[in-house]
Amino acid sequence: MIMAKLCIVLILIIVSTNVMADKRSVAIVIHGGAGTIVKEKMTASIESEYRQALTDAVKAGYKVLQTGGDSTQAVIAAITLMEDSPLFNAGKGSVFTHDGKNEMDASIMEGNHLEAGSVAGVSRIKNPIQLAYRIMQNSPHVILAGKGAERFAAQENIEFVDPAYFYTERRWQQLQKLLLEDAQSGKAGDQKSNYKNRHSTRLSEDAGDGFDDHKFGTVGAVALDQYGHIAAGTSTGGMTNKRFGRVGDSPIIGAGTYADDESCGISATGHGEYFIRAVVAHDICARVRYKGISLQRGADEVIMDKLVKMRGEGGVIGIDPQGNVVFSFNTKGMYRAAIDVTGTLTVAIFK
Amino acid sequence: MIMAKLCIVLILIIVSTNVMADKRSVAIVIHGGAGTIVKEKMTASIESEYRQALTDAVKAGYKVLQTGGDSTQAVIAAITLMEDSPLFNAGKGSVFTHDGKNEMDASIMEGNHLEAGSVAGVSRIKNPIQLAYRIMQNSPHVILAGKGAERFAAQENIEFVDPAYFYTERRWQQLQKLLLEDAQSGKAGDQKSNYKNRHSTRLSEDAGDGFDDHKFGTVGAVALDQYGHIAAGTSTGGMTNKRFGRVGDSPIIGAGTYADDESCGISATGHGEYFIRAVVAHDICARVRYKGISLQRGADEVIMDKLVKMRGEGGVIGIDPQGNVVFSFNTKGMYRAAIDVTGTLTVAIFK
Repeated sequence: MIMAKLCIVLILIIVSTNVMADKRSVAIVIHGGAGTIVKEKMTASIESEYRQALTDAVKAGYKVLQTGGDSTQAVIAAITLMEDSPLFNAGKGSVFTHDGKNEMDASIMEGNHLEAGSVAGVSRIKNPIQLAYRIMQNSPHVILAGKGAERFAAQENIEFVDPAYFYTERRWQQLQKLLLEDAQSGKAGDQKSNYKNRHSTRLSEDAGDGFDDHKFGTVGAVALDQYGHIAAGTSTGGMTNKRFGRVGDSPIIGAGTYADDESCGISATGHGEYFIRAVVAHDICARVRYKGISLQRGADEVIMDKLVKMRGEGGVIGIDPQGNVVFSFNTKGMYRAAIDVTGTLTVAIFK
Repeated sequence: MIMAKLCIVLILIIVSTNVMADKRSVAIVIHGGAGTIVKEKMTASIESEYRQALTDAVKAGYKVLQTGGDSTQAVIAAITLMEDSPLFNAGKGSVFTHDGKNEMDASIMEGNHLEAGSVAGVSRIKNPIQLAYRIMQNSPHVILAGKGAERFAAQENIEFVDPAYFYTERRWQQLQKLLLEDAQSGKAGDQKSNYKNRHSTRLSEDAGDGFDDHKFGTVGAVALDQYGHIAAGTSTGGMTNKRFGRVGDSPIIGAGTYADDESCGISATGHGEYFIRAVVAHDICARVRYKGISLQRGADEVIMDKLVKMRGEGGVIGIDPQGNVVFSFNTKGMYRAAIDVTGTLTVAIFK
């Protein structure tokens, strides 16, 4: 009789533990780029457009999590919506290279087995984040680049679009403005002298519409699902006027994207070169894991201290295994949104 | 009088400190790839060739350090010699892609300011490590890829060679062997089914000459100079039979190469996909810095434990700020050499 009671208690404990496990908290955080985004220069209607787009994207990802989907699918859902919006520098809204083309990068990582997929320099893929996912799932590789990546995409029945799909008047004018400035200052063309300095200067200028500076435009999402798995993804059109097959941090696992269920998931946006050199995403998670500090502190150490000393501008979003959502950025603004473990929605743009 | 004596003593201390600073220990360590390299399958003459090439390369780098050169130039000197040798899978001895081409990657990083340069997928550059250096020095970017990288190289007067320069009978036969095996097993061509599994299997097979398996062929060097600065560099021809613009870990800062004067410098060689997912080079330095463990322990934790659990094969070389030189690999062999702070030369191939 005592044995039977004990047995029932044990079964109840096991069942309730499983139910609790099934009801584990979920959370998602997204960004749409960081830069010199200031309220004074933005009209109410444009601000409203961005807020709506961020809200739609974060809710799309959250819906996946609420209906039992995993963090990877939540990340893809949120990023796909942002790639399809002309507002963000990724997918449809990608900026133009020096040669007047659109070259996109994206990456995704799963924190449970440290699986990752990444694509660099594609021009005809509607949703680069979906190609990054397919590379992770269906190829033995992590990073595929350029025409080769597009050949793989064709085999995988990934959606292709005509390069004209990525034409937006706003991005085209941003490029023309930079090219004109180059021509006027006599620095255009193939002159190699001062190339480094010229571009260093250029990068600190506003190439945007006044209200935001899309040189650091990128979109990203990080999610924690009910199974305790973290996924992170990032997608970008790169830098306006970029040349020479430049690759930024977005497709670099460890720099623009990183996820490890044991520490954290991170998606970054900023001046990619600095984010690569500082191995931003992995360094934040390494500090959390090896130093035992909070994710917010780890993110702030890297973004507000290490990167500031290196003079690298940008920001990150992140989630830890407990579902804590963090933002950290050293620019004037970052397009961002989150739905935390309590279900609370946050949408913000300015500091 | 007492003041004068004190003054002389002070001057002596300052001078001797400076002399000591000038005489700070230097050290260099190199690798020429890791894999299933076993003594029983290697003839004495081939072993002797490899030992000589490793000795020449490590001495070339050491000479730079001894004559007051910095760690970056030492790394470039050692890697350039290995790139020019047909023995290693980098530069001249690069393996062939699925399409019968040679696509090379390289990267370099300086530990004092975390500066870095990297190149991916070039086909006509004689010494990719020198292009990586030039990208670090003369461009605002860290990573340049493909044709764009070659356009930048042309502006920089980097040495170009005809693609035929990279033809070696041995590498060509390695590719033919794999292509024939693919054809015989009916897995060739554009069939997408089992692509992942097929290649996963293929990667565990011996694509080499029996005595070594060059699928993990890479060269690398890490040096500490008399100014206390660490530099690390890596160069590779990638994986035989690679497709779809695959990028491995060698050009990825944080994965194949990393250097930070505060923790360590690392160059990796192995199954690149695992090294990218594990952010190997940065993770080792992060463990050293944040956990306060030795470089040897940090390297072993990542290579002998974390990577083994992920089933990723390969190894690393490294140097810490005190000049301790480490090797760590989970394969049967790694071509390697070092000259440590006491001036002692080590050359080894097998476990």
